[in-house]
Amino acid sequence: MDDASQGPPNPVSKRPRTEPARSSGRPTRDQGAAGSAGPDATVTADAQLPKLDESSLRALAEVGRRWGPPEAAPDPRRASLPLDPQLRYRYDSRHERGAFVQVHHPLASGQDELEATQAGGEDTRLGRVGHHVRRLVIGPPLRSSAVAAQRMGKLLALPVLSPDALSSVAYGPEAMMAILVAAGSAELKLSLPIGAVLVALMVSVGMGYRQVIRAYPNGGGSYIVASDSLGPRWGLLAGAGLIVDYILTVAVSVAAGVAAITSAIPAASPWAVPIGLVVIVLLVLANLRGVGAAGAAFALPTYMFIVAIALITVVGLVDAGSHGFAAVPPATHGASEALGLLLILRAFASGATAMTGIEVISNAVPVFKPPEADNARRTLTVMLGLLVTMFIGVLVVAHLDGASPGSETVLSQIAHRSVGGGLLYGYVQLSTTLILLIAANSAANGFPRLLYFMARDDFIPHAFLHMGDRLAFSVGIVVLAVPAAFLYAIFGGQTEPLIPLYAIGVFVAFTLAQSAMVAHWRQHHASGWRRGLLINLLGAILSGAVVLIALVTKFTSGAWIVVLLIPMIIVACLSVHRHYQLAQAALYPAVEDAALPSTDAGARTYEGQDAPAEITHLAVVPVAALDRSALRALAYAASLNIPTLAVHVSPSDQEADRFHRYWQDWGDHLPLEVLVSPYRTTLAPLANYIEALHLQRPELTLTVVVPQVVVRHSWQRTLHSRTGQRLRRALNHQPGIVITSIPFHLPN
Amino acid sequence: MDDASQGPPNPVSKRPRTEPARSSGRPTRDQGAAGSAGPDATVTADAQLPKLDESSLRALAEVGRRWGPPEAAPDPRRASLPLDPQLRYRYDSRHERGAFVQVHHPLASGQDELEATQAGGEDTRLGRVGHHVRRLVIGPPLRSSAVAAQRMGKLLALPVLSPDALSSVAYGPEAMMAILVAAGSAELKLSLPIGAVLVALMVSVGMGYRQVIRAYPNGGGSYIVASDSLGPRWGLLAGAGLIVDYILTVAVSVAAGVAAITSAIPAASPWAVPIGLVVIVLLVLANLRGVGAAGAAFALPTYMFIVAIALITVVGLVDAGSHGFAAVPPATHGASEALGLLLILRAFASGATAMTGIEVISNAVPVFKPPEADNARRTLTVMLGLLVTMFIGVLVVAHLDGASPGSETVLSQIAHRSVGGGLLYGYVQLSTTLILLIAANSAANGFPRLLYFMARDDFIPHAFLHMGDRLAFSVGIVVLAVPAAFLYAIFGGQTEPLIPLYAIGVFVAFTLAQSAMVAHWRQHHASGWRRGLLINLLGAILSGAVVLIALVTKFTSGAWIVVLLIPMIIVACLSVHRHYQLAQAALYPAVEDAALPSTDAGARTYEGQDAPAEITHLAVVPVAALDRSALRALAYAASLNIPTLAVHVSPSDQEADRFHRYWQDWGDHLPLEVLVSPYRTTLAPLANYIEALHLQRPELTLTVVVPQVVVRHSWQRTLHSRTGQRLRRALNHQPGIVITSIPFHLPN
Repeated sequence: MDDASQGPPNPVSKRPRTEPARSSGRPTRDQGAAGSAGPDATVTADAQLPKLDESSLRALAEVGRRWGPPEAAPDPRRASLPLDPQLRYRYDSRHERGAFVQVHHPLASGQDELEATQAGGEDTRLGRVGHHVRRLVIGPPLRSSAVAAQRMGKLLALPVLSPDALSSVAYGPEAMMAILVAAGSAELKLSLPIGAVLVALMVSVGMGYRQVIRAYPNGGGSYIVASDSLGPRWGLLAGAGLIVDYILTVAVSVAAGVAAITSAIPAASPWAVPIGLVVIVLLVLANLRGVGAAGAAFALPTYMFIVAIALITVVGLVDAGSHGFAAVPPATHGASEALGLLLILRAFASGATAMTGIEVISNAVPVFKPPEADNARRTLTVMLGLLVTMFIGVLVVAHLDGASPGSETVLSQIAHRSVGGGLLYGYVQLSTTLILLIAANSAANGFPRLLYFMARDDFIPHAFLHMGDRLAFSVGIVVLAVPAAFLYAIFGGQTEPLIPLYAIGVFVAFTLAQSAMVAHWRQHHASGWRRGLLINLLGAILSGAVVLIALVTKFTSGAWIVVLLIPMIIVACLSVHRHYQLAQAALYPAVEDAALPSTDAGARTYEGQDAPAEITHLAVVPVAALDRSALRALAYAASLNIPTLAVHVSPSDQEADRFHRYWQDWGDHLPLEVLVSPYRTTLAPLANYIEALHLQRPELTLTVVVPQVVVRHSWQRTLHSRTGQRLRRALNHQPGIVITSIPFHLPN
Repeated sequence: MDDASQGPPNPVSKRPRTEPARSSGRPTRDQGAAGSAGPDATVTADAQLPKLDESSLRALAEVGRRWGPPEAAPDPRRASLPLDPQLRYRYDSRHERGAFVQVHHPLASGQDELEATQAGGEDTRLGRVGHHVRRLVIGPPLRSSAVAAQRMGKLLALPVLSPDALSSVAYGPEAMMAILVAAGSAELKLSLPIGAVLVALMVSVGMGYRQVIRAYPNGGGSYIVASDSLGPRWGLLAGAGLIVDYILTVAVSVAAGVAAITSAIPAASPWAVPIGLVVIVLLVLANLRGVGAAGAAFALPTYMFIVAIALITVVGLVDAGSHGFAAVPPATHGASEALGLLLILRAFASGATAMTGIEVISNAVPVFKPPEADNARRTLTVMLGLLVTMFIGVLVVAHLDGASPGSETVLSQIAHRSVGGGLLYGYVQLSTTLILLIAANSAANGFPRLLYFMARDDFIPHAFLHMGDRLAFSVGIVVLAVPAAFLYAIFGGQTEPLIPLYAIGVFVAFTLAQSAMVAHWRQHHASGWRRGLLINLLGAILSGAVVLIALVTKFTSGAWIVVLLIPMIIVACLSVHRHYQLAQAALYPAVEDAALPSTDAGARTYEGQDAPAEITHLAVVPVAALDRSALRALAYAASLNIPTLAVHVSPSDQEADRFHRYWQDWGDHLPLEVLVSPYRTTLAPLANYIEALHLQRPELTLTVVVPQVVVRHSWQRTLHSRTGQRLRRALNHQPGIVITSIPFHLPN
């Protein structure tokens, strides 16, 4: 044996824990702690390891006590490790194949960094090829600490965080006009008063989110704010609304972006759907590379778009001024519908999609440079100003130019009017397309964040707590892109039919966030809370009104999909939550259960055997033939020095005798049972026999040691039985049965 | 602990083995032993357990010797089984859930039958439902011994074994006429001379198979005969031909059967493909029930068909006689092709499909009542007589009646002529359909048998050695039905385009079987061997000629598919064979390797550790959180009394310290290493760390004990990490790493 002179890591003496005691009897993740600062909305490392409260810690200590003499003679297991677990020497020499590993010496100052630069993990030949392909496509991994380094100043944060909101200008006004035109092109003039109401709504909701930043300086999206102040159920409703919102943001932004392309190049129109799907795939790949590279690259298109809108608006206004601001009458459309309140409300609800993305900055406070909250609020104000100005500008110029929705987008029409068809027109369309794609991208960044927070609250599989390579939550992005691509494709790549679905989810989240802020101000009387309360109350009422209007006027034209989808998401999340709660209760027993004297031999079951002395072993080795794979499995089981029984299944008594003779030839070193299965199946009798053994003494830990031939190529797997896998499936429901496959590697 | 008074089964003293010593150094299955009786073509139980030759047995004993003192003090492992492995008491009380288990007491006379009546094995709730559904659909299981009980007399064997051959009358003549008619309907009269040549061919090949029965009284299909006398490569070619043949038998028979239906009910014509696919599905289900029930039920349709053909032939001849045997001129078809030798040869090759199935009886000798060979030969003679008579009758009457191939089958046309359109016509069509479906079914029975024999020779995955429920080789039937259904569907459910594919495979197998018999007679000069040799030589030459003719004339019209398919099957089989040979060499080492003093510490590797004393253990327990599932895994590892190391992966140093504190609270019972993975992935660093540990001392057996949460419902699996499964995949390529999942069952 090697020397084990390195020994185990120096254990630290007990230190007082810094975590506050919780009232709940269960360990919890860091979430929903009420307080004027609100819960922490940053993505934290500690979400992976649940915090243990006093009760759980006492239960843990109780289980530990059952292991035996606590501070007595040094446990022989401790000193006898046959190798150096710290890998100090070996690891360096194998630098090439190392991975993200660094051995942690608890609370020691001089840490040996054993960090390596390459990924590994899947070290099969295929795995390595896959690894290199992935690296090529999605770039090298990024350290956690890189997140903090990516803090943004206001000038960078504005273009990075505002594309979602500003790009809405490309489809919001158009969506509104598309409804109005149904009452005849003459009624398009109504877009101005409706637009005015929308501007009021924007300002009100935007102001409301300024209050959110004030109350949640660590960042708080609608989900976190609603969970915190209204309770988890309302938070969940906001979360479900946001999930739908994120999916539709991708679908609508891609649709509008492709529309900008097809307006400029009408010949591309028939290819709209495939173009959009390719864009979504590129989006996914780009996001698997992570947000890191995106920041700076995304800043330019936003400014380009702002300039583009400014350009066509100013030129359009100057043009119109030269005609005394007389509106050009739009191309005549026959009315297909009478003008009525319903139509106006529908147009209003469609136009409200121009507000999507207004909440992004309040979610992302931690990415600002300090002072985070102040910078975020100022950036939000600037963005709100830009949004309102651009929205008004587009509406007015569209009215003056007599633009009307059709196969060419409204923006493209007024761009043509203002700057002709040359280079400047191309610039406008290009920047529109780019900002829309970046907006779709911002959803791809926000969505996994939302899933992370919902996973922290046990509403979403905990897999979403783990970050993938380059900090992008790979799975989340795929989960987002697939339904988005699906919706995009089934609605034929058109923006218009997607709009009715879009408004609901967004405004449900707006309403809940603003209502939560009302509740927040009622609880926390910070300075200026009355003013905040009034602002948020107005925002809540107006947003709620939009939800109702959208529901009523758009139910039949697609909103019903969302009305079905949101409860389905909620039910799914609640099932997940319920499962995790029950799992937590089972995994972290209360002190009473942990202290249970489970050594009482009479009532012993497999449950609660948490200390070595409580475990009684039996090994069962199924042997199909006395080949080396079986001999190795028998040797493995025997070397553990636990009672071992070999089992063979034979189709006839004659064959059984033959096996017995071989067994004798080998030396008959272990007890053997031969099962005769005249039905010529092997697995079922084996599984039933093992189960029957187990039922005889359920408190035994029965380890089934299965010889397993391991092949080089996957097709060869069909050539060998997969007894281990099949036994695992057959006996999976039985507590106390452990299946161990002993690999035997074939050389070919 | 329970008493272990039952003790281990009474070991028998070494008995002389009855297996003959082999020249090969490797264990072999019972195959290809040359001898005048030929190899055993019965499905035997001993195929599952390879026979060990002297060399392998000595190697086995050598390994056994390394286990330690052979007959010294009783091994404590033997006496200390904590339960009764014979299950005498428990098992009865749980009769309801028992399965095909019967504990075998070696060589003892008074055996306690512990047999139970129900299947089990998959004992999850879903598994049980699935079990009941399967039982409902495919019937109760059948014991091995039931095979022997199903021996058939000649009167039963004839109808059971002849449908494949006799049903060919329904499409063979028609296939030939379909070619001739291309030269104009006037040339249909050529069917008579071509038919005469075919009859000569039939008699010759049929006589040849009588010789096969004589030489292989235990049964011998083309595959076994060719393997035995010409060598395994030629046997493989025959086997590949037969595989193609079986698939096409199903496709052609179903197509012809459906054609009989659509001739009677023309309105059903558009549904031909779906009807045929449903028939194939029903065929699969029927065969999963096994051959048992089939015998008697299948006898009636065969006799019905013989009667039907006799009826229309005799009535047709009598009718024709009343007109002085003047042939009615067939409906005029324009010639699309000049009459030439090529066309005549093509017609000949198509007509040769009437001979398919002629070999079935020679394969199935063991199912006859004794004297098997004599009964089989007599039955073959009767069948040959029937086939020739029916073939001639149909051709002559078709000629006299002026039938010509078209949307209505030729048989249907002459039936209409002979018996009108009433009940008798319906009877003819019904019996035709039934016998064709039974012919398809006979392929479904023969195919898995062929796979069994090829698996015994290592050409096919050994899974085909194991019989499913009710002795039907379930997988084989599915493997047969899927390509058959595929071919049937892509050829539009028509017989005609399938015919060119059909002839090749059949006649390749015929040719090889007859050639093998020639070789056989040259080696074994049994009485009458000269006559036998001449008969088989003629058969070989004629069959070979058919192969050549079919290849040349039908290559472009579909035969090329078979010409591609057969080599592909051969290559696949050879790859399988090569893998099994190398695997055998690895699994059954020669004596020298087994005797290797692998206790030499210097050069020790994991390879060749076949005795407990040679194994040095280290357990590694990955711990994600100190919950009960992890505590149980730690306790399990520690209770094995082998050196144990716990490993935790943490995203940051702070979190690592937190985990260390919990570890201290628990009691710090085991050495712990914490890996800091700043890249927020868990699996890759863990796998790399374990691999690095393993590389430090590759001769260690490193058991990774993974806590595994087991859930009740499959959707809940997405809620928990599958570390065990993923580690198994990541570390699978490393010999000496064992992954053990310790299940923790959640109550909900």
